[in-house]
Amino acid sequence: MVYDLIVIGGGPAGYLAAERAGHAGLNTLLVEKRFVGGVCLNEGCIPSKALLYSAKVLDYARHGEKYGVTAQNVVFNHEAVIARKNKVVKTLVSGIKSKLKKNKVTVVEGNGSICGKSPEGYQLKVNDQLYTGKRLLVATGSMPVIPSIPGVREGMEKGTVMTNREILDINEVPSSLVIVGGGVIGLEMASYFNSAGSRVTIIEMLDRIGGYTDREISEILMKNYEKKGIEFKLGCRVVEVKDGSVVYECNGERLSSPAERVLMSIGRRPVTEGLGLETIGVELEMGGIKTDERGKTNIPEVYAAGDVNGRSMLAHTAYREAEVCINNILGKKDIMRYNAIPSVIYTNPEVGCVGETEETAKQKGIEYEAAKISMMYSGRYVAENDGGDGICKIIVDKKHKKLIGVHMIGSYASEIIYGAGIMIETEMMVKDIKEVVFPHPTVCEVIREGIFEL
Amino acid sequence: MVYDLIVIGGGPAGYLAAERAGHAGLNTLLVEKRFVGGVCLNEGCIPSKALLYSAKVLDYARHGEKYGVTAQNVVFNHEAVIARKNKVVKTLVSGIKSKLKKNKVTVVEGNGSICGKSPEGYQLKVNDQLYTGKRLLVATGSMPVIPSIPGVREGMEKGTVMTNREILDINEVPSSLVIVGGGVIGLEMASYFNSAGSRVTIIEMLDRIGGYTDREISEILMKNYEKKGIEFKLGCRVVEVKDGSVVYECNGERLSSPAERVLMSIGRRPVTEGLGLETIGVELEMGGIKTDERGKTNIPEVYAAGDVNGRSMLAHTAYREAEVCINNILGKKDIMRYNAIPSVIYTNPEVGCVGETEETAKQKGIEYEAAKISMMYSGRYVAENDGGDGICKIIVDKKHKKLIGVHMIGSYASEIIYGAGIMIETEMMVKDIKEVVFPHPTVCEVIREGIFEL
Repeated sequence: MVYDLIVIGGGPAGYLAAERAGHAGLNTLLVEKRFVGGVCLNEGCIPSKALLYSAKVLDYARHGEKYGVTAQNVVFNHEAVIARKNKVVKTLVSGIKSKLKKNKVTVVEGNGSICGKSPEGYQLKVNDQLYTGKRLLVATGSMPVIPSIPGVREGMEKGTVMTNREILDINEVPSSLVIVGGGVIGLEMASYFNSAGSRVTIIEMLDRIGGYTDREISEILMKNYEKKGIEFKLGCRVVEVKDGSVVYECNGERLSSPAERVLMSIGRRPVTEGLGLETIGVELEMGGIKTDERGKTNIPEVYAAGDVNGRSMLAHTAYREAEVCINNILGKKDIMRYNAIPSVIYTNPEVGCVGETEETAKQKGIEYEAAKISMMYSGRYVAENDGGDGICKIIVDKKHKKLIGVHMIGSYASEIIYGAGIMIETEMMVKDIKEVVFPHPTVCEVIREGIFEL
Repeated sequence: MVYDLIVIGGGPAGYLAAERAGHAGLNTLLVEKRFVGGVCLNEGCIPSKALLYSAKVLDYARHGEKYGVTAQNVVFNHEAVIARKNKVVKTLVSGIKSKLKKNKVTVVEGNGSICGKSPEGYQLKVNDQLYTGKRLLVATGSMPVIPSIPGVREGMEKGTVMTNREILDINEVPSSLVIVGGGVIGLEMASYFNSAGSRVTIIEMLDRIGGYTDREISEILMKNYEKKGIEFKLGCRVVEVKDGSVVYECNGERLSSPAERVLMSIGRRPVTEGLGLETIGVELEMGGIKTDERGKTNIPEVYAAGDVNGRSMLAHTAYREAEVCINNILGKKDIMRYNAIPSVIYTNPEVGCVGETEETAKQKGIEYEAAKISMMYSGRYVAENDGGDGICKIIVDKKHKKLIGVHMIGSYASEIIYGAGIMIETEMMVKDIKEVVFPHPTVCEVIREGIFEL
């Protein structure tokens, strides 16, 4: 049988593409080597949110006094948290499986490897079985970058050095945890294990945490973490992982931090090896599959979506890229835009960002105006955050008076930021946003407040 | 001195109007009889949110077990909650005062009464002093409706029967609380006092709670409350308030509930008496001041905004109405629209609604399509809500495929709903919303999920 579409990889890009394709009546095959749902659902976004929510409940139980609530003998059961996380993942994976089934997608488990093209279509080998598809969508995602630092490989073999995959399944809270890399994954795990009782140290090569997050916001986040006891070693590089400690260099000085466990979270890279991409000549760029704004590769009828293109490395970008691919396969005009993709750090406080920061606006030569508003302008924020130091930044294109960026740190930022994305996506101008009625009292009102400063 | 504008009432409509007018350079006088910030800030939206947040912290501390957190001897200190609430209100009131000062608004405390028109403008008497303004903005808000039920007046004199004002300041949690009226105020107070330990009974004349909230959502909310132990007496009317109990009639049967305290929350009515509106002939309609879409009354240069016009009775509507008035005073064209005003119930679970419900769409003869999505479609919701039963409803104009309503019950609904308001306000079509990138994993993604069902 010749499939209309073969999707390689069952993460957010792959399963959504397969669902949509199946829904549209395409005879679709999905190949997944590990678990449907991919990294995001099984060992990324979702499990980390289950853990972080438990940490939040713990923080409430422990620090409720200023809100009139006291409790004694507050106990955190990490094993129960992991068990619950597994239950949550199982529920969601089975949800995806049933959606795939409902949309008549055939799912095959195994490593898929492209092995050429026949007159009928592209050929893929999975578990020694050959499948043929008129079209291919590569959605193999990404994997953690593991630096070649002495001791890392040995630590990984022993299980003391981990990636996002392993850390979400450890049964005991380590007394000390060193996190190499202060990006989103590192920060979220730092937040959880700090609450759970680990002594946490983050070692980051850059002079800031949170990657491209607005600099001021990443500084506020760091201050909040430091208050909770997390240590930061910025501008430092790890030189060796020993048994029970991590050695790093800061300004030429050689230092060491205790580390019962080590999390490597310095970044991720597209998974392009072992897929047989070379057999049909798919072009790569910067380590990822090169695609145009329609998700097309250089080879006709071969598409790529999600982390494997190396662009945004976010599950929700993957969803949208997958849709763009399927729409184009179906002959509907659709192109991918990257200007209004939100990003979130689900710690406490939360960070939500979308669009240009002051830094990127400057780099791009955009003349902009910025408003910075304390979250304390929100009555709800004041009511719910004793001593809160959250802020919201609004970035506006000066010439067209159009919203181009919103960046916030504080409660609910994760759930508020999509609305800012919509305002950017629909190219709303300052005068239009002034006419929007925000419910009162909410934290999202700070956006409105900021807009009126412009 | 003749003011450019006199604003009567310092609640959300009044203080915002005065701020904006002052900012624009108008010589502005604000007259407030009680506290700047009005009911919303002093005895409504804000204090209730402070209380509800404490109740949420308490619920977390008590019921954290399913998230891996246990605590013993969880104690709730209601007096501390009230003290903190007072601090929050004080902070916010002083914020408004300083904003008024910054915008050069003159604030006078006292009862303002219009006493006619001189060639210079309208005259207002406050504490026996006469003020003249070229323009008037009436923003006197609303007050609770107190029914003439036997025993109510006596109870109010004794302090056992209360309105939203008094209940937010009682120092002890009553053993039993009867709430007359299951609207937003009644529900929020029920939620708080139930968590705080009262036996709570809600008596409601209608066959549903939450007023015009989507019927299915109000049923889910009620189920959640019932699980927590709140009792509902729907389709019942209170016939007498006695010492320690409330007597009511259901289907002809006479029943009684214990009531150490009683909250009257059957509705609010515009404050139009004693203002001297008749001296200049301001027209009323259905008990409120009649205004056009620019906030103008029938009398030239006399405007009204906020609850006093009897339209929406929400603080955020008042903000926008105030801005519309000021923009028109400043000669900027601006009109008030009511189709995208969100409403929120800040209980646990939260309810957020905007636009048409199925019921109102039917009433208006709009051909619509509706999608109903379980919140369980959101990975974050599953991760954070063990056994959650939240839903999201999407209402779309069938002809134009335009979003016209979103209604949700579940965590973060209060902070998500504004984005749905923006989509309605900007008249986004289903196909446009499909292109919006929602951050993953969030609860707001259920909107996207619902849109793809249409």
